[in-house]
Amino acid sequence: MSGVCFPKGFSAAGVKAGIKVSGNLDLALLCSKEPAKCFAAFTKNQVQAAPVLYDKEVLSKQNVISAIIVNSGNANACTGDQGYADAVSMAELAEKELKLGKHSVLVGSTGVIGNKLPIEKIQAAIPELVKNLGVENENSELFAKAICTTDTVIKTACISVQTSMGEVRFGGSCKGSGMIHPNMATMLAYITTDLKLSEDFSAEFKSLVNESFNAITVDGDMSTNDTCILLANGQSGVFLADLSAAEQANVRNALFELMKYLALEIVKDGEGATKRIEIEVCGARSKTEAMQIAKSIATSNLVKCAFFGEDPNWGRIVSSAGASGIAFDASKISLYFEDVQIVKNGMPLEIPKSQLLKIVKQKEYKISLNLHIGDSKASVFTCDLSYDYVKINAEYTT
Amino acid sequence: MSGVCFPKGFSAAGVKAGIKVSGNLDLALLCSKEPAKCFAAFTKNQVQAAPVLYDKEVLSKQNVISAIIVNSGNANACTGDQGYADAVSMAELAEKELKLGKHSVLVGSTGVIGNKLPIEKIQAAIPELVKNLGVENENSELFAKAICTTDTVIKTACISVQTSMGEVRFGGSCKGSGMIHPNMATMLAYITTDLKLSEDFSAEFKSLVNESFNAITVDGDMSTNDTCILLANGQSGVFLADLSAAEQANVRNALFELMKYLALEIVKDGEGATKRIEIEVCGARSKTEAMQIAKSIATSNLVKCAFFGEDPNWGRIVSSAGASGIAFDASKISLYFEDVQIVKNGMPLEIPKSQLLKIVKQKEYKISLNLHIGDSKASVFTCDLSYDYVKINAEYTT
Repeated sequence: MSGVCFPKGFSAAGVKAGIKVSGNLDLALLCSKEPAKCFAAFTKNQVQAAPVLYDKEVLSKQNVISAIIVNSGNANACTGDQGYADAVSMAELAEKELKLGKHSVLVGSTGVIGNKLPIEKIQAAIPELVKNLGVENENSELFAKAICTTDTVIKTACISVQTSMGEVRFGGSCKGSGMIHPNMATMLAYITTDLKLSEDFSAEFKSLVNESFNAITVDGDMSTNDTCILLANGQSGVFLADLSAAEQANVRNALFELMKYLALEIVKDGEGATKRIEIEVCGARSKTEAMQIAKSIATSNLVKCAFFGEDPNWGRIVSSAGASGIAFDASKISLYFEDVQIVKNGMPLEIPKSQLLKIVKQKEYKISLNLHIGDSKASVFTCDLSYDYVKINAEYTT
Repeated sequence: MSGVCFPKGFSAAGVKAGIKVSGNLDLALLCSKEPAKCFAAFTKNQVQAAPVLYDKEVLSKQNVISAIIVNSGNANACTGDQGYADAVSMAELAEKELKLGKHSVLVGSTGVIGNKLPIEKIQAAIPELVKNLGVENENSELFAKAICTTDTVIKTACISVQTSMGEVRFGGSCKGSGMIHPNMATMLAYITTDLKLSEDFSAEFKSLVNESFNAITVDGDMSTNDTCILLANGQSGVFLADLSAAEQANVRNALFELMKYLALEIVKDGEGATKRIEIEVCGARSKTEAMQIAKSIATSNLVKCAFFGEDPNWGRIVSSAGASGIAFDASKISLYFEDVQIVKNGMPLEIPKSQLLKIVKQKEYKISLNLHIGDSKASVFTCDLSYDYVKINAEYTT
């Protein structure tokens, strides 16, 4: 299985620094042979962890990065000035060992909130971490394991596209299974590519993130450390701008598919989740409004409990759409479970229960709400709310 | 136990119209001897039930009301034009039987969404309903029972205030136990008083509603039928405006206490709730921002699961505050469980776990978050998220 090291010029490593009580892999490193263009999206939470603050500071100065060092087991969040100083040290220690210049390494942390980062353990482990850097196309799995916290499976993906100018590769790895324990929370996603990209790709990257990692919800909570980073080192020799429109579309689509796949892996791994449901809102005035309504439905406990109970409860869906704060005409809406229409002009149709039960008993299905007031649409991927979600979150103790 | 009929000049009734499958009381009537000033607040859900649309229409014409007829077992929501026509008939049939003029009766409905209102059953029951109107101070309990759906207890309250101009009485009744089944959802609240009020009280009524019924959350969902109505018939002969400032404050406070008490009864009756927690946000720039942050915390599944698990999980609270969309300086915040400070300047303090466990094991306690960026504050009352919430909502089938 390959991931972040699939594209040309990337190597990675994962070691045990002793940060996790479990003794599992907890320190990861991703390196690019050549400095890579960096595109990043961070949590919008007002409470931001030190590594997020540090990465934003670095990227505000320049956007070429050679490596990323990530620890799991400690979020370095709510740790004040000391926490920020530790994030800086973590980057500088890696830069020193990799013989790289200042501000060439980003940092990431995920794990317990409010505990001082054990920087001395990280310092002690960095030499071995660097020594273990695999050759290209190796260690993707070690990297994927070392960034995990409560994840039940590692999450990696890779895809390659043939272009008239040669092969382009994308790889990636992410962690997160819903903000299960905010003390063990966070979604981290690291995407690599050997495609050559120019800075103006950043706007597009943001919209790709919005339609993938920002279009999933497990429990609606947003962590203090959420981060998604794309490193493009150009080693394929293929420059996106040089490709034909059709080929550019192919390449972009490959990247989107990879990001969406990784995002959905997180939903599947959602706390106690037994189902994965796509909530599509179409016929909206704008993509933003469609997304807000879809999120209102996707995060409603009543809707999520109905999913778990395999109950085709259209009333909960319509009502949570109405509670989204977005204006629409309730007498115009239609609602579909897969291809079966259940609401027309805001009123229920006579559908045999058995037909709907066949749909809601599936592990994965799609619900589509059409507002009939515009041409925009958006989708959110969510999971059900089960006994296990409550169990895990109630029994976990700080 | 007295409620809506406690103030002078109000009578009520509750009968079985056969709308509920259970055969319980399902048709309620509240009458004022003299036409009463009406103040009302309705759901902000985009999907509004026919009775809500009808009442808003009537109150847009004038604000003096003589009676309210309410049915339970059917929400008359998502019922289109037919539903609106049925709401009109329900009002007109009551007006006819009570020998009242057009637009003197408001209607309320709560129950299953998407089913046609059985208006013929209501029509058949109205004569008995009117015949059973109790004398003053009677039947408050029958009214309270007849408006209930999934409530496990009836919710009534009454309070009286002595003023230099005589006694003023307030009574009230509400139903709702969280939007448990949106097909059996809704919060309805009817408040009565023999105080004389002028129209300019409406702004104050709205703010009282915001700090009582709009300051509670069971599962964060908002129904298609939510309604809160205050009828003031002036039968006490006491006009609020004639009282001294101090007496006005007393009277206002009595009304607020009654509304808050009824609102908290709904939280206590929240689906599967085992605890009731006040989330106070202070030191905010504005009441609105304080309220938005408090609601973000009060509706977080992670926070609510921690309440259920009796886990003093400050990280979840701080993180959900940060996710509220309101800007604040995370390095300034302090957090208290009752009077025990657990976070200072955004960082955790060393508090003996035993001290915190004593607090979170209580049935009711208060959490206070101080942003230290202003002087405004707001409180939201919430309950925990338990296995039973999931059980009830997953096993209920449309």
